[in-house]
Amino acid sequence: MAADLATIIDPHALRQLFRGGLDVASTARLAPGRVQGNVVILPAAFAADFEAYCRANAQACPLLGRSAVGDALLPALGRDFDVRTDLPRYRVWRDGEIAGEPQDIRSLWRDDLVAFVLGCSYSFEQALIEGGIRLRHWDRAQNPPYYRTSVDTTPAGPFSGKLIVSMRPLVPRDAIRAVQITSRYPTVHGAPVHLGFPEAIGIGDLARPDGGDPIELLPGELPVFWACGVTPESAIRAARPPLCITHKPGAMAITDLFNKSLETA
Amino acid sequence: MAADLATIIDPHALRQLFRGGLDVASTARLAPGRVQGNVVILPAAFAADFEAYCRANAQACPLLGRSAVGDALLPALGRDFDVRTDLPRYRVWRDGEIAGEPQDIRSLWRDDLVAFVLGCSYSFEQALIEGGIRLRHWDRAQNPPYYRTSVDTTPAGPFSGKLIVSMRPLVPRDAIRAVQITSRYPTVHGAPVHLGFPEAIGIGDLARPDGGDPIELLPGELPVFWACGVTPESAIRAARPPLCITHKPGAMAITDLFNKSLETA
Repeated sequence: MAADLATIIDPHALRQLFRGGLDVASTARLAPGRVQGNVVILPAAFAADFEAYCRANAQACPLLGRSAVGDALLPALGRDFDVRTDLPRYRVWRDGEIAGEPQDIRSLWRDDLVAFVLGCSYSFEQALIEGGIRLRHWDRAQNPPYYRTSVDTTPAGPFSGKLIVSMRPLVPRDAIRAVQITSRYPTVHGAPVHLGFPEAIGIGDLARPDGGDPIELLPGELPVFWACGVTPESAIRAARPPLCITHKPGAMAITDLFNKSLETA
Repeated sequence: MAADLATIIDPHALRQLFRGGLDVASTARLAPGRVQGNVVILPAAFAADFEAYCRANAQACPLLGRSAVGDALLPALGRDFDVRTDLPRYRVWRDGEIAGEPQDIRSLWRDDLVAFVLGCSYSFEQALIEGGIRLRHWDRAQNPPYYRTSVDTTPAGPFSGKLIVSMRPLVPRDAIRAVQITSRYPTVHGAPVHLGFPEAIGIGDLARPDGGDPIELLPGELPVFWACGVTPESAIRAARPPLCITHKPGAMAITDLFNKSLETA
């Protein structure tokens, strides 16, 4: 199935397949060149604080778009994009705890819900690959490892928590190029937040990530860390909203936007 | 005297003082905001090859300007800028060996000489400082250490040699910012060429530089390496031109150009 999906380059067609019930564990490498995003759906009572949290922690939670209250459509992000059905799989949170992972959320939708879409590292990874940088986890069709750091995010209302970072091992020349390339993509996490010393940001053991696939650091490689779109999960756990719905990690919202359109001068 | 000089912000006035015989060991921090440059003066028979060498190794030898053959004036770089007199001190090379360090070169000037001015790290250091990055060697009024690497430059005609790099120790956050800032200044060495592993570029002992002032690496700091304007000295030694005149290291040409004018978008 994955091989067939890879031939579908139209993001709308992929969303229609997900709407029809198709499940995939990861949307990485699907609809190449298109922006994929993290999704966070919250009751309107939490929306202003969550938006403030995103703006205060823009490297971890870069806002690509939000819906009107009660409106499940995201016209700015894709044609006929219905956030209730067009992702492969969702994660439902109740009082800050995971309560289920359904394939659509039509039965959970309410008139007071607001959907946020946040930038995701798939976009800058595409830019890195196109910039000639080889990413070992791509070669292996894996996800990069991510880690909870000792760095506090800036709280907003009930939202708070530690910064989560993803890590990619790079030789110094590629690390320098990666800073240059990802700096041009501020809406999909932008430049690295750290490189070189995991312990300086509270990471004790690179071999034991909090998620994603572990990847070894080879001699001559630096660990390079980017703010990660998993950061909002910590904030949701802290805020404990009665209801929250996100994408299931790895299975992102595929938008019609082109990654290139996110590049700054 | 240095305290008085620091009050003279007009680059033309400084050049007039040097023309009148004022000697300073270093022009660092003089005429803040103005571009300073490395100078290489060669017989016209070597000029085309040297220019090709600079273009092939633009990170180490970024060309800011050159004079017409036999013309000692550099109008594009400064008002009434006479390259024979307006630097604090020169270094004369004969057959690739240092033959003297006079304060002016009027008696050496010939109708077949061509002057090249190359960008220098003082410009990007100014940009780093203004970007909020503290440079320990600035606080100490020292020069950064530089090292001969194992990396070959691209030869052109008789010019060849190893890449020389300068090193500044930076914490990771500042190293990332420094890549972002210096990438915007390609005509004054641009982005770092390496960071993290000195031995990977043939540097055995950071405490023993080939020039400049040694600086210790503190815990949590990365050594960050930029291509250095001392690189042409190696190339001159290799090419062994019968006559070559450079600035004396540290005592640069002070131009009328503003550093900001070198910043790319």
